[in-house]
Amino acid sequence: MGILHLSKEGGVKMQRYFVETPLNSQMRVELSPEDSHHLFTVMRANIGQTLELVDKTQHVWLAEVEEIYSKKSGLLKVIKPLEIPQIELPIQITIACGLSKNDKLDWIVQKATEMGMTHFQPLALSRDVVKWAANKQADKIDRLQKIANNAAQQSKRLRQPDILPVRTLKEFIHNCPQESAKLVAFEETAKEGQHGALKQALTQALPGGHLIMVFGSEGGLEISEVELLQRSGFEACSLGPRILRAETAPLYALAAISYHYEL
Amino acid sequence: MGILHLSKEGGVKMQRYFVETPLNSQMRVELSPEDSHHLFTVMRANIGQTLELVDKTQHVWLAEVEEIYSKKSGLLKVIKPLEIPQIELPIQITIACGLSKNDKLDWIVQKATEMGMTHFQPLALSRDVVKWAANKQADKIDRLQKIANNAAQQSKRLRQPDILPVRTLKEFIHNCPQESAKLVAFEETAKEGQHGALKQALTQALPGGHLIMVFGSEGGLEISEVELLQRSGFEACSLGPRILRAETAPLYALAAISYHYEL
Repeated sequence: MGILHLSKEGGVKMQRYFVETPLNSQMRVELSPEDSHHLFTVMRANIGQTLELVDKTQHVWLAEVEEIYSKKSGLLKVIKPLEIPQIELPIQITIACGLSKNDKLDWIVQKATEMGMTHFQPLALSRDVVKWAANKQADKIDRLQKIANNAAQQSKRLRQPDILPVRTLKEFIHNCPQESAKLVAFEETAKEGQHGALKQALTQALPGGHLIMVFGSEGGLEISEVELLQRSGFEACSLGPRILRAETAPLYALAAISYHYEL
Repeated sequence: MGILHLSKEGGVKMQRYFVETPLNSQMRVELSPEDSHHLFTVMRANIGQTLELVDKTQHVWLAEVEEIYSKKSGLLKVIKPLEIPQIELPIQITIACGLSKNDKLDWIVQKATEMGMTHFQPLALSRDVVKWAANKQADKIDRLQKIANNAAQQSKRLRQPDILPVRTLKEFIHNCPQESAKLVAFEETAKEGQHGALKQALTQALPGGHLIMVFGSEGGLEISEVELLQRSGFEACSLGPRILRAETAPLYALAAISYHYEL
């Protein structure tokens, strides 16, 4: 769904939608079936109504409704690029999490998207309290992707985070980009009073770089999993002296990252 | 409820409970009815079982069960003080929030407690989507206090946050401690690219000081409310360039505060 917000040009509420194609002035484009439903059926857009489109290159364009097909979908005409302040973090952030019960992953994905996450990697860890049946994995990823897309619109992100297929820890490690900064949030590091690893990683990261952070589920991480990660280039890091719940830790990390770079 | 955690002395799981009285070695003390129920009925504690008690001065004591009354409650004997690393933030943080619908305030209180909040102030603001009926306010505060107490135990805090009675903005401003640092999270400040106020307030705060932060509900703050706060010594601050939901903003702020002081 798109969300309403005030345009710069004075109080007019304008919808914003993501599109898959790169855009250019005068181009004609259609929205996804879901966004079309939202714009034409829910919001009852008329011909001439203006809206914002964000393309895959993170550019924002002013567009208008040019044609409407039987009140359900329509053709949009791109008018001009819009100047939008930088609102993406200067580095890409992958949040890799064990599988949590109930709607905790939903919450993590929604909030982490608001806070600037670029990739979400569900991890099947040994102490996870839930397993994802093989025949349900695609649905679960699809559901999380929709949550991420909605949150990206709501928070005016310029990109929708990628929800990656669930992986075992070994598959995940095998597929990690070599050049990324890699951290694993580990309570024992906090207990030892070692709180500097996150700040150090952020200070050393280069603009355009990629930080990958691993978090356990409610059950936490096995020592053997932490050791495997450490042998694979991950540094154990603390998220402060208080014990955070599984769903709180990734949000803490992202807020800290934003504070470091943006405030 | 108390939570299980590993003691420093090697793998024994020990409960931790908060008590209202200051403690001393050899003192005898009883838990609250709720904690007694948890320790003796749920956890089935036996005579001689050790546990940790946290008193109002934020000291932690080793104690043991000395007597059990009909399996439902019992007398605890304080054995000795325990050395516990500092896990409270160096300043007190009041989170003052508009009234949100559903269980959003529950979430804010739970997560903000994990992240170090010391006071929670529910605020009746003009754009709140819910109102608290006068005859339900005490129950709602009581419920939030229980959530805070449980989260304080889970995250091994040394204090339980105080949930304050709901106030109008004027009552709240009138009762704000004069010497506190005061901020109001305001989206428009972020849009203007002014992101420095939170960091500046944290850099200037003295250890033992008090920071009060105001957040709107889903409906946001009226300009007139922000102006009233500003006239009363509150500075408008940004929480970064992305739009955060009402329930995300206080958690972002607390994580940023923790990162600033503790990492």
